[in-house]
Amino acid sequence: MAGPQGEIEELIALMARLPGLGPRSARRAVLQMLRKRAALMAPLAKMMAQVAENARECEICGNISVGGCCEICAAPGRATGEICVVEDVADLWAMERGGAFKGRYHVLGGVLSALDAVGPEELGIPRLLARIEAEGVGEVILALNATVEGQTTAHYIAETLEGRGVRITSLAQGVPIGGELDYLDDGTISAALRARRAF
Amino acid sequence: MAGPQGEIEELIALMARLPGLGPRSARRAVLQMLRKRAALMAPLAKMMAQVAENARECEICGNISVGGCCEICAAPGRATGEICVVEDVADLWAMERGGAFKGRYHVLGGVLSALDAVGPEELGIPRLLARIEAEGVGEVILALNATVEGQTTAHYIAETLEGRGVRITSLAQGVPIGGELDYLDDGTISAALRARRAF
Ligand SMILES: [Zn+2]
Ligand SMILES: [Zn+2]
Repeated sequence: MAGPQGEIEELIALMARLPGLGPRSARRAVLQMLRKRAALMAPLAKMMAQVAENARECEICGNISVGGCCEICAAPGRATGEICVVEDVADLWAMERGGAFKGRYHVLGGVLSALDAVGPEELGIPRLLARIEAEGVGEVILALNATVEGQTTAHYIAETLEGRGVRITSLAQGVPIGGELDYLDDGTISAALRARRAF
Repeated sequence: MAGPQGEIEELIALMARLPGLGPRSARRAVLQMLRKRAALMAPLAKMMAQVAENARECEICGNISVGGCCEICAAPGRATGEICVVEDVADLWAMERGGAFKGRYHVLGGVLSALDAVGPEELGIPRLLARIEAEGVGEVILALNATVEGQTTAHYIAETLEGRGVRITSLAQGVPIGGELDYLDDGTISAALRARRAF
């Protein structure tokens, strides 16, 4: 016998598979749920089951949403002329939190990787090309991560779009608002220096 | 619009109420679940619903378990002569991980607190007294936390048990196995020094 038993133990093991939760924090989370079974655990289980059942990738942009069509593609107020290409739904959420982008998205769901057999087809790049034609897109913003794989993928997309009369941009690199130089990696500081502006 | 919508947003809000998970890590956890809806999210939701539905406090010791009686009170191999008093199910789990204790438990579910109107009744202390008689208990181990409230509660229980012919003990205080002195608080070091043994 070693701590919690049976279904409680299984629940802790499942919780420990979530990012940021190890065995210890999974145990604490389950304990909190056990203490608040009616107020927290039951509603959480219900909402999780609903989302697991009803969440779908949007056929247009790849965003994940619940209950039919993606809110962004369905919103009449969102500009159709601009597509922001992101690696992941997490990046789409981050862009939306910023609140500055009013266009639509294309979620790649990953980056090009020969090792993992992820090619342009897997990232929906033919679908992106079709959208550019169909939606009369004038600008594609490549908001990929500043990793080697992200930038390789960005360059591939930029090359593919060349000659199609669409403006290709990427997010500016620089010092984050409130960012302390001391905590930034050297690459960010160099990029910010190269892109320096008149004060 | 600010990031995820509707039910996904509600799920993130519920997850963020778990200890150790803020809004950011709740978002990452939900995203991971969305990516693994069949392999992780659906089984997690199902197990959580089962536990929420079936978990019960043991009427004897206060341990929480699923599906009827508490495994510890039901185990014929556990000694009935020793009761270990703990504040919380988390502490019971910690004791069981240690694996050294072969007796039974009494889970207080808290500590004495005038402010929160938690008295001996709320902690099941009359039930503990009844068990000591009924189960022929020879030793009560007070494994309460080394906080002011925990120690106040331990002293109250010790006084209540006085004159009932039961041995009252508490866990030894000292340096944890593998503990570096530099990282220990002064109280622990002082207690370990006072309880020093021949080398
Ligand atoms: Zn969409
Ligand atoms: Zn029990």
